[in-house]
Amino acid sequence: MVNGYTGNILRVDLTKEKISIENLDEIFCRRYIGGEGFVAYFLLKELKVGIDPLSPENKLIFATGPLTGFAIPGTGRNSVGAKSPLTGGFGEAEVGGHWGAELKHAGFDAIIVEGKAKNPVYLWINDGKAEIKDATHLWGKITGKAEEIIQKELGDKLVRVAQIGPGGERLVRYACIINDLRNAAGRGGLGAVMGSKNLKAVAVRGHKKLEVNNKEKLRVKIKEYHDVAYKTYAGYFEHGTGGGIMEMFAESGNLPTRNFRDGNFSGAKALDPSIMKEEINLTMDACYACSIRCKKVVEIKEPWEVDPLYGGPEYESIGAFGSNCGIDDIKAVCKANELCNKNSLDTISTGVSIGFAMECYENGILTDKDTNGIKLNFGNAEAMIQMVEMIAKREGLGDILAEGVKRAAEKIKMGADKFAMHVKGQEIPMHEPRLKQGLGVGYTISPTGAEHMANMHDTSFISERAIALHSALGILEPLEMDDLGAKKVRILTYYSNWRNLSNALLICYFLPWDYIDIPEIVRAVTGWYTSSWELMKVGERITTMARVFNIREGFSKNEDWLPERFFQPHTSGALAETKIEPDKLKNAILMYYKMMGWTEEGIPTKTKLQELDVEWVSQYL
Amino acid sequence: MVNGYTGNILRVDLTKEKISIENLDEIFCRRYIGGEGFVAYFLLKELKVGIDPLSPENKLIFATGPLTGFAIPGTGRNSVGAKSPLTGGFGEAEVGGHWGAELKHAGFDAIIVEGKAKNPVYLWINDGKAEIKDATHLWGKITGKAEEIIQKELGDKLVRVAQIGPGGERLVRYACIINDLRNAAGRGGLGAVMGSKNLKAVAVRGHKKLEVNNKEKLRVKIKEYHDVAYKTYAGYFEHGTGGGIMEMFAESGNLPTRNFRDGNFSGAKALDPSIMKEEINLTMDACYACSIRCKKVVEIKEPWEVDPLYGGPEYESIGAFGSNCGIDDIKAVCKANELCNKNSLDTISTGVSIGFAMECYENGILTDKDTNGIKLNFGNAEAMIQMVEMIAKREGLGDILAEGVKRAAEKIKMGADKFAMHVKGQEIPMHEPRLKQGLGVGYTISPTGAEHMANMHDTSFISERAIALHSALGILEPLEMDDLGAKKVRILTYYSNWRNLSNALLICYFLPWDYIDIPEIVRAVTGWYTSSWELMKVGERITTMARVFNIREGFSKNEDWLPERFFQPHTSGALAETKIEPDKLKNAILMYYKMMGWTEEGIPTKTKLQELDVEWVSQYL
Repeated sequence: MVNGYTGNILRVDLTKEKISIENLDEIFCRRYIGGEGFVAYFLLKELKVGIDPLSPENKLIFATGPLTGFAIPGTGRNSVGAKSPLTGGFGEAEVGGHWGAELKHAGFDAIIVEGKAKNPVYLWINDGKAEIKDATHLWGKITGKAEEIIQKELGDKLVRVAQIGPGGERLVRYACIINDLRNAAGRGGLGAVMGSKNLKAVAVRGHKKLEVNNKEKLRVKIKEYHDVAYKTYAGYFEHGTGGGIMEMFAESGNLPTRNFRDGNFSGAKALDPSIMKEEINLTMDACYACSIRCKKVVEIKEPWEVDPLYGGPEYESIGAFGSNCGIDDIKAVCKANELCNKNSLDTISTGVSIGFAMECYENGILTDKDTNGIKLNFGNAEAMIQMVEMIAKREGLGDILAEGVKRAAEKIKMGADKFAMHVKGQEIPMHEPRLKQGLGVGYTISPTGAEHMANMHDTSFISERAIALHSALGILEPLEMDDLGAKKVRILTYYSNWRNLSNALLICYFLPWDYIDIPEIVRAVTGWYTSSWELMKVGERITTMARVFNIREGFSKNEDWLPERFFQPHTSGALAETKIEPDKLKNAILMYYKMMGWTEEGIPTKTKLQELDVEWVSQYL
Repeated sequence: MVNGYTGNILRVDLTKEKISIENLDEIFCRRYIGGEGFVAYFLLKELKVGIDPLSPENKLIFATGPLTGFAIPGTGRNSVGAKSPLTGGFGEAEVGGHWGAELKHAGFDAIIVEGKAKNPVYLWINDGKAEIKDATHLWGKITGKAEEIIQKELGDKLVRVAQIGPGGERLVRYACIINDLRNAAGRGGLGAVMGSKNLKAVAVRGHKKLEVNNKEKLRVKIKEYHDVAYKTYAGYFEHGTGGGIMEMFAESGNLPTRNFRDGNFSGAKALDPSIMKEEINLTMDACYACSIRCKKVVEIKEPWEVDPLYGGPEYESIGAFGSNCGIDDIKAVCKANELCNKNSLDTISTGVSIGFAMECYENGILTDKDTNGIKLNFGNAEAMIQMVEMIAKREGLGDILAEGVKRAAEKIKMGADKFAMHVKGQEIPMHEPRLKQGLGVGYTISPTGAEHMANMHDTSFISERAIALHSALGILEPLEMDDLGAKKVRILTYYSNWRNLSNALLICYFLPWDYIDIPEIVRAVTGWYTSSWELMKVGERITTMARVFNIREGFSKNEDWLPERFFQPHTSGALAETKIEPDKLKNAILMYYKMMGWTEEGIPTKTKLQELDVEWVSQYL
């Protein structure tokens, strides 16, 4: 334990207007790593059981990882966590951009925000110091305006801002937190938690030089990376996520279409950013220290004006506002995405909520009266954009949809729940579980509800090249996508633990860093003599702690389940005869529990917690 | 799975006099690695349940690993396995020297010997070909003589011979297999299995050049190794195991003294090979490709003539014939060791059996009548040497002791069982479980019975330097040696899995190769994109398969226990007030089962076997 990496936490009590700094020892940092690991630790350790996520008793945690702030491609991310107002359980999301690196340069690894400010405030963190500043004048402002004012009043255009827009202020249950106007800590409604605390923004500036333990080793790794990256990731350089794959996704059945109802989508090509490049004036941007530059920036003049300040849509946003709403207009998608970034709304949950409303509308469950006359049919781009604005403002139907599809369906009644595509209250992202059935199991057991960021994607394990890579995890054979047997569950178990580790290290998935590179990079940066074994166990530790948090909050295995829709085939297309078999799903979930060392009820055992070196967590069982 | 390493197995049916060659595919090789992994696979897959280990139905497996035969320090080992005639369960032992490398150069990764030859035979393997040759003229010969004749009749002094001496021929239940006259696959009675098959020897010669996948990477690793080795392992270079530590071991209570009865031993210094160098004319020898040269060679003229052909005693042998028999004469120890190597007897079991008989004798359970007049008191060096010869010849009391202490005590009766220091019938090696209490737990759960080669040594986890190294396994804090809590059991669980992996790779423990180096070396040699995660899981797989083998043979958790002696303190010395608490031991064993994913009865679950990617093994539960 030499050459130790340690950490600093900035603790801000908004109620008492008190700021303090805590030092984290090296063993703590190594055991929980950062990011999602810190979130899991502090939520379990410090939150009272059963609190309202939108009450002052919730805590909002911003956390970086040990690699954050170094000039290492793929590490320009940070994590945000809290008890989720969308699911009532473990809430955590990661976000790219520059903010996390800036926080590290300002001398902090994490921030814990407690209580609630009397009036709107923002936090100003500057080279080891922090202060709570009035934000009354910023409240109600869209993100772009607020950032402009903050940078102006702090007199520094390089101040980095993580903030909420009006959606977060109005406690939309899936409001996100926006970094640098274009990067979202998207899922779980963390922006609503920020809003509930009257915290408009966290502005950060730092100049601290970070020390690398072994510069030469790190240099070699980054060189290796560049050699691979330019060959392997050409598509990402040019048009980011979604580029060049939309039609293929539609044909394979992976592209969610009309609220996950239909099989294929003839408008997929028109949604492809690699084909529509000129229509949307596509250019590319990058996160801190990253050479991949996969972040889209779009600029459109008409029929909707889309401001390039707010970046452009990722694949998830294209799917959610495009095919999932039956819309084949990439410009409309770009506008919806821009509105989400202005207002701090999660694009997946927003799009899926609108798709849900469209299906309700087409089935007569919602009428023109409910929509204030908006013709909310699948494919109506203008209506979709209007709905985004209504959700941000909580106007009319928007106020209901702002609660997420689970609560909206409970309110709407009339059988609307069969159109509510969620797990644990969180809307399902843009990967079809009937195609990627291992992912389907992953949706059910993910502690944050349906999500694609801590999960397996069956397609990633079927090519010879992929198997060669994943063999480092002991995955030696390809499997069919609709396989739900023990070998598939084994992959899910290992891989979701790895992803939770990645969400603690804050390593981007779109890079050629893998199971062998990452321990080497962590070693080079921190001086820890770490291995893939140790790091995989950190991932398993985090997965398990998040599970314990949910159990403590009253979740049981009953919430680990998919919407009924997925037990029927698509209406057409490649999956017209493919569905998930409920018995197989049930069995796969049970195998997952047991492979994780949990009981058949999905409850981690005390011995498993001891084996993971976190016996203290067993007090919460 | 590119650049694949695959393997060849030579299958020899001695009954049918049939020889065949089988090719192993790459996934098989990667899943089971080699050595103990191959042994576990073939014993489970091919042995009928409940067979007599000394019947033709047992199979004797010689196996190398993927690194064997390359010029890599620390890889000059091979594994031997069979159902053990000593324990009736999983039998496996590793051995150094040159034989394993030679087998690999002859084109084979493993040999499976089946059936029983009508008359004594030996196997001659030469560059991809194999034949069964008559050994009638070799039967009854000591190893040195037999090797001389074999090399002469094959016309090649570089033929490497693994063989049994008269002890193996006479089915001493702890007979070993001797490579190159001085290296023993010691534990479990594998030499008796060889004897039961009328197989005197396996002679091997090969010239195949082995291909390294990444020469440059391997070159760098070996250079790194040398940089560390000469600094860290100076003691081993000069006098091998036991050198410079005997007195310290005695003072700490680690040195088994008078059949594990007493606490310290005033004769420890006189047993130290670093102090007694000149008396025993100590020189050093090395295993294949190893630069450490830790293997002793001793030459003595009087009072006993000790032939340097047979090497010299390791620490285990010094302890077993020295302090454990109350003897402080290093020359006597060397003679006993030489006799064991001539006769193919395991020095640990032989020494512990004699220590047992000495304590019985001192307590009047054995009398002069039983010993044919030999005064079998602790400390009587001449008597000890005589007993070794009597065991090898199965003469008088030697015939009883040749059955191992468990069976001997059953035969002797009169309460002798309280002096029988064994677990599952295998004699306890030379590390005191009252001092190293984690090792004590390890003795109970080791599938081969008490052993020190697949186990933790608590002392290895207490210094700051050790913690820095072992942190790669996620072991972040030192623990007291008498700690039997969850953190200790966690270390035992991880570490014993790692050691079983090492016994599959056939990597020596005395080298600076560790959790990070070894995956890198395996990658460089095989081209597999492997990690410490994958390899640790191989270790866990092997541990679990060995457990299933024992369960299938009728073992239960009742056999996972220590002799009563260890629940009392030593009569004197550092551990005069230290004992193992039975309740703590019981609890630690239970935690171990559960950390391994086994039931509270110590039975691996089907899900654990699925998670380890060996669902097929569950058919044997």
